Amino acid sequence: MQPTKSTESTKLALSPLTPAYDSILELTPYQTGKPVEELSREYGVFDVVKLASNENPIGCSPQVTLAITEQLGRLARYPDGNGHYLKQALSDFTDINIECITLGNGSNDLLDILARAFVSADDVVVYSQYCFIVYPMVTRMQGATGVEVPAHRFGHNLDAMRQAVDDNPNTKMVFIANPNNPTGTQLQHKELHKFVASIPSSVLVVLDEAYIEYSPESNNRALLDEFNNVVIVRTFSKAYGLAGLRIGYALSSTAVAELLNRIRQPFNVSRVGLAGAVAALGDQDFIEKTRNTNQEQMHWLEKQFDALGLAFIKSHANFIIVEIQVEMEDITAISIYQALLEQGVIVRPLVGYGLPNWLRITVGIAEDNLRLIDTLRSILTND
Amino acid sequence: MQPTKSTESTKLALSPLTPAYDSILELTPYQTGKPVEELSREYGVFDVVKLASNENPIGCSPQVTLAITEQLGRLARYPDGNGHYLKQALSDFTDINIECITLGNGSNDLLDILARAFVSADDVVVYSQYCFIVYPMVTRMQGATGVEVPAHRFGHNLDAMRQAVDDNPNTKMVFIANPNNPTGTQLQHKELHKFVASIPSSVLVVLDEAYIEYSPESNNRALLDEFNNVVIVRTFSKAYGLAGLRIGYALSSTAVAELLNRIRQPFNVSRVGLAGAVAALGDQDFIEKTRNTNQEQMHWLEKQFDALGLAFIKSHANFIIVEIQVEMEDITAISIYQALLEQGVIVRPLVGYGLPNWLRITVGIAEDNLRLIDTLRSILTND
Repeated sequence: MQPTKSTESTKLALSPLTPAYDSILELTPYQTGKPVEELSREYGVFDVVKLASNENPIGCSPQVTLAITEQLGRLARYPDGNGHYLKQALSDFTDINIECITLGNGSNDLLDILARAFVSADDVVVYSQYCFIVYPMVTRMQGATGVEVPAHRFGHNLDAMRQAVDDNPNTKMVFIANPNNPTGTQLQHKELHKFVASIPSSVLVVLDEAYIEYSPESNNRALLDEFNNVVIVRTFSKAYGLAGLRIGYALSSTAVAELLNRIRQPFNVSRVGLAGAVAALGDQDFIEKTRNTNQEQMHWLEKQFDALGLAFIKSHANFIIVEIQVEMEDITAISIYQALLEQGVIVRPLVGYGLPNWLRITVGIAEDNLRLIDTLRSILTND
Repeated sequence: MQPTKSTESTKLALSPLTPAYDSILELTPYQTGKPVEELSREYGVFDVVKLASNENPIGCSPQVTLAITEQLGRLARYPDGNGHYLKQALSDFTDINIECITLGNGSNDLLDILARAFVSADDVVVYSQYCFIVYPMVTRMQGATGVEVPAHRFGHNLDAMRQAVDDNPNTKMVFIANPNNPTGTQLQHKELHKFVASIPSSVLVVLDEAYIEYSPESNNRALLDEFNNVVIVRTFSKAYGLAGLRIGYALSSTAVAELLNRIRQPFNVSRVGLAGAVAALGDQDFIEKTRNTNQEQMHWLEKQFDALGLAFIKSHANFIIVEIQVEMEDITAISIYQALLEQGVIVRPLVGYGLPNWLRITVGIAEDNLRLIDTLRSILTND
């Protein structure tokens, strides 16, 4: 793993320039999954399997590459800042008015825009232990206070989260991921509905459905018909296989969307991103295939982890976390991560998520998963 | 022109949700140049010439399309969040340490990140009359106060700007564009150096060099060697012809870059954007050709405006503003804009820039410019 920046090195020699918020200085840059190119550059390993960033291992729809190829003669032209055709396609797909849609440079952009729109320095933002690390990041970026609610069985404890909202009258926003990243847990529609109904309508509930295509039963689109304070955020980076293009979208009330559209940068989604996403959305057979491959391979991985004696959390997404609790002192999740890395297999350590004994592994194609399990077995058995 | 949103419609029905800053509600969304697709959709005009967004009319380097084609099999993979290869290429090109570079989703992203990093609600930001509209936008987005300094001959009045900094001890940032958009004016290195040397080192001077390739003598890279409080922002959207891909970069001190890199989203530049920009930077012959075409066509346009009796401001970029002061009551810049639009020629009205009698026209290729001038002549002479 990249050495985490010490608090020492976060003291920037900016003086006499001062940052807008002290909390910016405390931000540790987001640790991305190690890019394949970087591993090759640093370790001289070229046959690399990356199972670190929950990317779609079967790529993306061939319709996407066709659509992008059509744009190659128009790269000098700005994208349509309104994203008309993509919003039209999303409106049809999600059965929502086009004025309720906001496009983002990945869903990360939308999480950021949401915090900027609704959270200021005196406010509180509530999220769960083991949540996506971008929630505390965008909170801190606004100079606001984050309240992390202890998880229940690695997932959201909605009762405790409601209590946290009650205890903090300055709460402006709640982040909930369903399925949750990095743990893969899922919430039932009924309990989520009860949660939203029970909190003040002045608190925005941001439902992150980045992995919804892997778990269609988790779709909570229906909440939008009932609650103006719900926003659903989704992405083309996971099942749609367009992480490299950066496109996400938010569904909300018209009033919230109008505000988000004022804050987003006028050309936040690229021309190739817009065209690629329209094509990707149009190929639902590809999503079906993606889901089936993932399910099949997830079952296979679960069996292998059982055989290796590794505990894991049942996941509803395209990744799974496994616990490294071995009886040997010198084996830790980080040493396993490092050993895998040296043999060209990239997974994700979860130290930054408060899960130092766990690794998050993206479900790959059969060949990649076999390589992972073989390598893991040889490390664990000291082969 | 799109009807500007009235103050009436800016009152969003958000209640009981409240935005982070009141000033967000006052933001008018950025009026982009009308996209060709939109004109076709709305007016049924298909043979469209767009001279509205200062795009490169000869497109981009063929090296770029090759580089992107190579990425088409890797769209499902996240971009390198560190942008290693592009930063390396920029480091070589600008002769600056790689740690001094921050990449952005277009230079707009960097202007926004800079304001977030250094400007909070109690601060003042100084910019010039007739400046790029994104400067007041990002200022307002932070809830800060913008001070607009009256222009001198359509360009920056640096003495008055320094006075504004002196008069406002809370000034945290000054925006200067060189050449300036939308007026095309240029500052001399000597006067800019004097300006930077005269203001407190606690004030960040953001030099926007979006059009620098059209005016290499305006390059103020040297200021970075002397002043830690200078940031230079550039883009691949103009001369490099990659507006559709969204890539910009900032050059600054290491400490400033480290802060900006904490605030930017981890994957703010796409995979195709990174690859495209490396290829574009490598083809400086294309930039030379772009500059020559622009110069030749700029001269031709100047002559035509003279012949039509239209005043214009000498421009150092790839656009030119012309004044519509005709002796007929029913002809205004907006009516000319509208008449051009109906005949398939898109230019940019400047009402939002406080220049209601002016139009900004991007220098196109010979054929496009001829079409513009012919159409303009026939409108003015009521042919």
